[in-house]
Amino acid sequence: MTFPFGVTYYPDQWPKETRDKTFAEIKKAGFNLVRFGEMAWDWIEPQPGKFHFVELDHALDLCAKHGIKVLLGIPTSQVPPWFHRKYKNSRPVAQDGTLYPDYGPRPNVCKDNIYYRKHAENMAKKLVVRYKNHPALFMWQVDNEPVYPPLDHTTSNDYCHCEHSRQAFIAWAKKKHGSLKKLNEVWGTKFWTNTFSSFEDITTPKAGIWEAVSPHIFLDWFRFKTDSIKDWVSHLAKIVKQIDPHHKVGTNGFIGICTRVPEHDLIPENLDWYGLDVYPTGNQMQESDYAFALDFWRSFTRGTRAEFHITELQGGQNVRWGKPAYVEGPEMKKWTKMALEHGAKCLLFHAWRPPLFGAETGGFGILQQDGSSTKRLEAVKEIAKKIENRKSLVVGRRSKIAIAYLRSSEVQSYQEQGPPRSIAGQWETVRTDIGLLHTILSIQGAYRALYKRNQSIDFIFERDLDSGTLPYKVIILPNAYLLSKKQYNHLKKWVENGGTLITDARFGLKDENGHLYKHPLIEDLLGVKYEYTIPIPEGFLDRLKGKPKKLQIITKKLDQGKVCYANFSLFLELKKSNPKWIKVLARLVSLPSKC
Amino acid sequence: MTFPFGVTYYPDQWPKETRDKTFAEIKKAGFNLVRFGEMAWDWIEPQPGKFHFVELDHALDLCAKHGIKVLLGIPTSQVPPWFHRKYKNSRPVAQDGTLYPDYGPRPNVCKDNIYYRKHAENMAKKLVVRYKNHPALFMWQVDNEPVYPPLDHTTSNDYCHCEHSRQAFIAWAKKKHGSLKKLNEVWGTKFWTNTFSSFEDITTPKAGIWEAVSPHIFLDWFRFKTDSIKDWVSHLAKIVKQIDPHHKVGTNGFIGICTRVPEHDLIPENLDWYGLDVYPTGNQMQESDYAFALDFWRSFTRGTRAEFHITELQGGQNVRWGKPAYVEGPEMKKWTKMALEHGAKCLLFHAWRPPLFGAETGGFGILQQDGSSTKRLEAVKEIAKKIENRKSLVVGRRSKIAIAYLRSSEVQSYQEQGPPRSIAGQWETVRTDIGLLHTILSIQGAYRALYKRNQSIDFIFERDLDSGTLPYKVIILPNAYLLSKKQYNHLKKWVENGGTLITDARFGLKDENGHLYKHPLIEDLLGVKYEYTIPIPEGFLDRLKGKPKKLQIITKKLDQGKVCYANFSLFLELKKSNPKWIKVLARLVSLPSKC
Amino acid sequence: MTFPFGVTYYPDQWPKETRDKTFAEIKKAGFNLVRFGEMAWDWIEPQPGKFHFVELDHALDLCAKHGIKVLLGIPTSQVPPWFHRKYKNSRPVAQDGTLYPDYGPRPNVCKDNIYYRKHAENMAKKLVVRYKNHPALFMWQVDNEPVYPPLDHTTSNDYCHCEHSRQAFIAWAKKKHGSLKKLNEVWGTKFWTNTFSSFEDITTPKAGIWEAVSPHIFLDWFRFKTDSIKDWVSHLAKIVKQIDPHHKVGTNGFIGICTRVPEHDLIPENLDWYGLDVYPTGNQMQESDYAFALDFWRSFTRGTRAEFHITELQGGQNVRWGKPAYVEGPEMKKWTKMALEHGAKCLLFHAWRPPLFGAETGGFGILQQDGSSTKRLEAVKEIAKKIENRKSLVVGRRSKIAIAYLRSSEVQSYQEQGPPRSIAGQWETVRTDIGLLHTILSIQGAYRALYKRNQSIDFIFERDLDSGTLPYKVIILPNAYLLSKKQYNHLKKWVENGGTLITDARFGLKDENGHLYKHPLIEDLLGVKYEYTIPIPEGFLDRLKGKPKKLQIITKKLDQGKVCYANFSLFLELKKSNPKWIKVLARLVSLPSKC
Repeated sequence: MTFPFGVTYYPDQWPKETRDKTFAEIKKAGFNLVRFGEMAWDWIEPQPGKFHFVELDHALDLCAKHGIKVLLGIPTSQVPPWFHRKYKNSRPVAQDGTLYPDYGPRPNVCKDNIYYRKHAENMAKKLVVRYKNHPALFMWQVDNEPVYPPLDHTTSNDYCHCEHSRQAFIAWAKKKHGSLKKLNEVWGTKFWTNTFSSFEDITTPKAGIWEAVSPHIFLDWFRFKTDSIKDWVSHLAKIVKQIDPHHKVGTNGFIGICTRVPEHDLIPENLDWYGLDVYPTGNQMQESDYAFALDFWRSFTRGTRAEFHITELQGGQNVRWGKPAYVEGPEMKKWTKMALEHGAKCLLFHAWRPPLFGAETGGFGILQQDGSSTKRLEAVKEIAKKIENRKSLVVGRRSKIAIAYLRSSEVQSYQEQGPPRSIAGQWETVRTDIGLLHTILSIQGAYRALYKRNQSIDFIFERDLDSGTLPYKVIILPNAYLLSKKQYNHLKKWVENGGTLITDARFGLKDENGHLYKHPLIEDLLGVKYEYTIPIPEGFLDRLKGKPKKLQIITKKLDQGKVCYANFSLFLELKKSNPKWIKVLARLVSLPSKC
Repeated sequence: MTFPFGVTYYPDQWPKETRDKTFAEIKKAGFNLVRFGEMAWDWIEPQPGKFHFVELDHALDLCAKHGIKVLLGIPTSQVPPWFHRKYKNSRPVAQDGTLYPDYGPRPNVCKDNIYYRKHAENMAKKLVVRYKNHPALFMWQVDNEPVYPPLDHTTSNDYCHCEHSRQAFIAWAKKKHGSLKKLNEVWGTKFWTNTFSSFEDITTPKAGIWEAVSPHIFLDWFRFKTDSIKDWVSHLAKIVKQIDPHHKVGTNGFIGICTRVPEHDLIPENLDWYGLDVYPTGNQMQESDYAFALDFWRSFTRGTRAEFHITELQGGQNVRWGKPAYVEGPEMKKWTKMALEHGAKCLLFHAWRPPLFGAETGGFGILQQDGSSTKRLEAVKEIAKKIENRKSLVVGRRSKIAIAYLRSSEVQSYQEQGPPRSIAGQWETVRTDIGLLHTILSIQGAYRALYKRNQSIDFIFERDLDSGTLPYKVIILPNAYLLSKKQYNHLKKWVENGGTLITDARFGLKDENGHLYKHPLIEDLLGVKYEYTIPIPEGFLDRLKGKPKKLQIITKKLDQGKVCYANFSLFLELKKSNPKWIKVLARLVSLPSKC
Repeated sequence: MTFPFGVTYYPDQWPKETRDKTFAEIKKAGFNLVRFGEMAWDWIEPQPGKFHFVELDHALDLCAKHGIKVLLGIPTSQVPPWFHRKYKNSRPVAQDGTLYPDYGPRPNVCKDNIYYRKHAENMAKKLVVRYKNHPALFMWQVDNEPVYPPLDHTTSNDYCHCEHSRQAFIAWAKKKHGSLKKLNEVWGTKFWTNTFSSFEDITTPKAGIWEAVSPHIFLDWFRFKTDSIKDWVSHLAKIVKQIDPHHKVGTNGFIGICTRVPEHDLIPENLDWYGLDVYPTGNQMQESDYAFALDFWRSFTRGTRAEFHITELQGGQNVRWGKPAYVEGPEMKKWTKMALEHGAKCLLFHAWRPPLFGAETGGFGILQQDGSSTKRLEAVKEIAKKIENRKSLVVGRRSKIAIAYLRSSEVQSYQEQGPPRSIAGQWETVRTDIGLLHTILSIQGAYRALYKRNQSIDFIFERDLDSGTLPYKVIILPNAYLLSKKQYNHLKKWVENGGTLITDARFGLKDENGHLYKHPLIEDLLGVKYEYTIPIPEGFLDRLKGKPKKLQIITKKLDQGKVCYANFSLFLELKKSNPKWIKVLARLVSLPSKC
């Protein structure tokens, strides 16, 4: 089969009479795939229950005519304005009670909303029934960037707190913890008289970041939202597959604003592909940052049935968010080459033509706004020629080094440190001495340091530590603040069997629920006595009994393996590109047996 | 007639027994006019429907006795507390749903509120009937600074979003666009599934500034608010004129916080005067900034029946907002002289005496707080002597140079760039690389540069470009980002007939609705091929095909005239007082034939 | 009796089976007192009306067994989650209408809420009846830090504005002002048409800080909240005393975020002790700042029946708020010594053991998190040995110098200057040229300057100026912006009888309601003519007629005493540790007769 190489193009946003010519041009550019539909609920169901397929038929038929396949989006990410007229109390709710906008920003509906789910399911069924046998259909996309939380211009913190979410959160907590007694214990509700005496007492954790909310509830709140999104994606995929078992189903996501959103590693069992949306100049990425994104996403799909796709690769000037940086053209060739080298099985640019209206006016177009050619189009044509012979480009590989991303530690670090907060005239900010992105900056720091040395890198996640399947020579484990006993035992055994573990401050201070261990796991691992941790300008410093207070790396042989433990936030230092520590890491990694 | 020279003095805020003496002193200082009433609703209608005129009669009678005329304010700007008791849901609503305060800050009511309008109309009728023949009456003021949006201490963004405003916005949109089809097209609602399938679906644009709201709806929202205020002012003026056709009616406004408010150029046909409120030291104005304010306001009134007045000129120390800077006295003479030179037909200082209580305690008084004399009073006396012979001061003039202020471009630039927004730990701000006040800073920059060269300047507005009446030799046109075809054609014709147009980056990229032109108008004007625009540290840089990327000014003869186009934000550079570009502008302006 | 020397330990947060051993260890460490209960409503009344005393009995019995006394807290500071299920509309309300969280942050209920009061009263009765004769009972604590306002992560401004508070505010205002006429006069409601025509019109002052709310209403709002809290504490104490007249009753508080909270000087007549909670490293205190806190709190209790206690002295690493600074151990000895030297009659550390869960995980423990010993425990043991012979430590003293803290001036200064406010693109901040903490920084400045010279210092308050009992040689009076005639007359008389008054800019500009005096009191005091005040980089500068504009100190003999008046904010200069002004103050203070 040809390598699926495509582009986004929204036929609903352009005059009907221009479509034939446009698809012809897309084909001529060398694309074999086009993506649309995922934001077009109003186009397909302009009034509740009144479906309008003429236009979509027309677009798909034209694609078939021109020999282009379609990645067809099922548009459930945003609801049309009629939804909010029909269901008055369905705007997403911020943690402080503010209602998010009913149109404009996205998403404008909570995925836990049962009325939304009903209409979305119906949309999925209708669309799949109609187009499952269409010759142009290549695969399905459900939702669009489902991890994206509702945002308004003042809020940057959290997910929807509506009554639907509250009920779903209660049900989730009931299922997870079984009894109120257990739930209260895990959530540490005895602190400040928060014991729930009925499941009905439970509300979503408000003011969730800084001011004294239980860190344990906050962890579960983020886990609930992850599960809720994952289940919803799975549910949509199941609906699609029941009607059409023959086409692949997937969805997409992005990296960034990581701490504000639940686990991006949310691939349900029935998903066939998981696509990365990536905007290198919009996000001001260095080459290593872009490689990081590719390896991170590839690692998400590792061990799942889902293929690693690039669903949106920046095709033109960025607008609306991030940096409005331009794309000249030639850089697109390098981006494509790297994507394939890192394992992408499908690649689409975003987008064919810059929209002339809307919130992203003028953005992302391969073509000029008047439809004329650009150096970007020339680049696409060159890519198209090479990509047919894709085998030569794709490098199959298995890394010997893994960097672990521990989501629970990230969430907990964020919750404890909170967003910068000023209390008028008293404190400028609270605990900004530490910083907010402990884990993400740490793993980026480690990745950058190793990327320069051409190391091949996998990312691993809590699921890997849980399973204990760790086929690596070296594991880099930053900010392992929360670590379950099970995860720890797997790690320790892996070291004893010959692994080299490189880790840093706060190793195993807390369990998976954010409760302090009486004896931090580092004590068992190194045979030391932990005293306390203090913040230092860059991160944290652990104090061990009898050891000097200064920054140091302690190494210890464990049977056939070795632990290298920095008593400070080593990987945050790497993010700053501190050459001293880059050199140290390189040494630890390249010479594991002498570490 | 004597030049109307007055001062604000609120008789309701001082003991009744002191009024006689006070008016005598005001007269003795040389004032022939006093202004009061505009904030005294509670004084005149202390209970709903219960009018209390004894006090007002007394104040007016005393004025008559002392030979002072009265600029009588009809107090509809703020409602008394009883209004919010009577109409429970009448507090103004912020875009995020927050209710604005019911008392304290102003305004505390939405001008679209129909209950407010009913009471305000009644107040206007009652007052005009009673005082239309009073010998002291000089003219009427309706409302007070009607452009002022509701503010609380956290919000700086927008107008009221109450249900009254929503209904009025729908009616306005229906009238403007006729059909839903047309409205959806103009508002670009196909983007992100926002198509309105019923007029009833329409809500006011929330989170309006940054996060993905339609820029087209946002433009219309600002236009609606302008029209709504203008119509209301017109409606009040009509009520007054129906009862009293003999006295002038006007209202006042201010410059500043320009981007947050609708068009200040909101003079309805039936308004006789439009007054500027200006606080030179409170706003830390340089001399040229004060001159700018005068010319800007004078230009608002150009072509209307409304006279240019100064309704409030700072008379004492600033308080509450801006800089609490003092006024010594002598500077008041210069301010007056300049006001008259720039065409003011009436001038009042604010205020006679500093209030001893309230939110502006101690502010703005010509007198000392104990009522004793000051150097400011001495200045007033000197001014009063000269102002009688005002003919010698007022310079009639018609500028050869105009600076165009394009409100639509300003609103669009603001909406696209948004207020600084921080997303915890990820982006410090979004697109502050450009800045928020593109147009206003640009025209101030151009004005400052020319002011130093003693150029006489008019400001022109979209209405002037719409009409095509452009009696100038040179037009300076910054940030002409949005330009209708009609405006463009008028401009081009004017150039061809001998005009010199000086403009800068982003010329004619968008039409009047904020849709991108496929072919930006600069292509037609200069016969070039536009490629793209990128942000640079100060503003924007246009890239033209085949032209070097650097900052440059391209001039082109067009029949008998000439266009000078800077491919960068030239006028923002001027605001920074960059001497290089000041020199360039001076050359372009002073030598138009060789430009 | 032994000196009461104790520690916080929450038996509800630890396994039942560990309690016996823990109390034995606490005793062994040398403590004779343990504090718990104050946050344990959910432990004692897990369901509304269902009381559960078995656990509490157990804890108290164990204390008795080990010979430890108990400071038993009556847990009414936070309500359990069932309260908000039972009373749906009982979440505290921010001034902009935002509802504060129902659990997590504290407090989660408004003390004006009548349903809360009913349940809290019941809790107090039940607890006192049950334990009044328990052999371990030492004394009662009602509430916990009752001055603490509801907080969420975005709000730092104000107290609860719920309907209960509104009704209580109206009742308070009716009682204070008697008639609407008087209330409107005092509140200056004529300004901007805010006259209340019915008591029912009154709402709590919203947007209270900056934007144009009446400063007079704002003063009364803060006074109301102080009185409301004080009355509630008194009411709880009365309930306790009616049932148990034999044990002392008190409550606790803290210094910091002073401007946001009402008067901390809120000791009702029936309170037996008032405890300070103080965290020297958490608040990054210098030695003199800690001494300041001690003297300030001691001064609160002066002239009341309440003893000065230290209810919480930092016993371990700070967490959650402030700086997460560590406590090594030895510094605890110095803190204790100073506390006793400054008059503390009881001292408890916070806390015995760091919690393993909750919002303060790992914080404040004397022990290590695994329960093992630390240098802090060693320090405690040393302290325990010395404290038995406490007579030698406690220095009885009466200061000759007093620093006056004028709460009304502080509130007014804060309200007028407001929190930093940015209006997008226009003003960076409003009036930050002055600063927000005028009074508190001033008195800290004066204290620091004198502390270095080993001066013994009392603080005095408005109540002292009101009574006229001023047994000092020198009074330092910063920011005497608001001063009633009565307070002034007492001060003047005291000077005439031989006192030395050292004061600074803005002396007596306003009366106790925040109305400007026509003739500022400084005119009478010094026989000068006041002109105006302007902000300068550090504070304010008064201009006096005929005097040069520069910074100066004017001294004047008044009969047998002397006034030293700085025409600028002298004490803010001291806070900056400006050596010039420290020297001047030292001279003025040490040589009063030659000042």
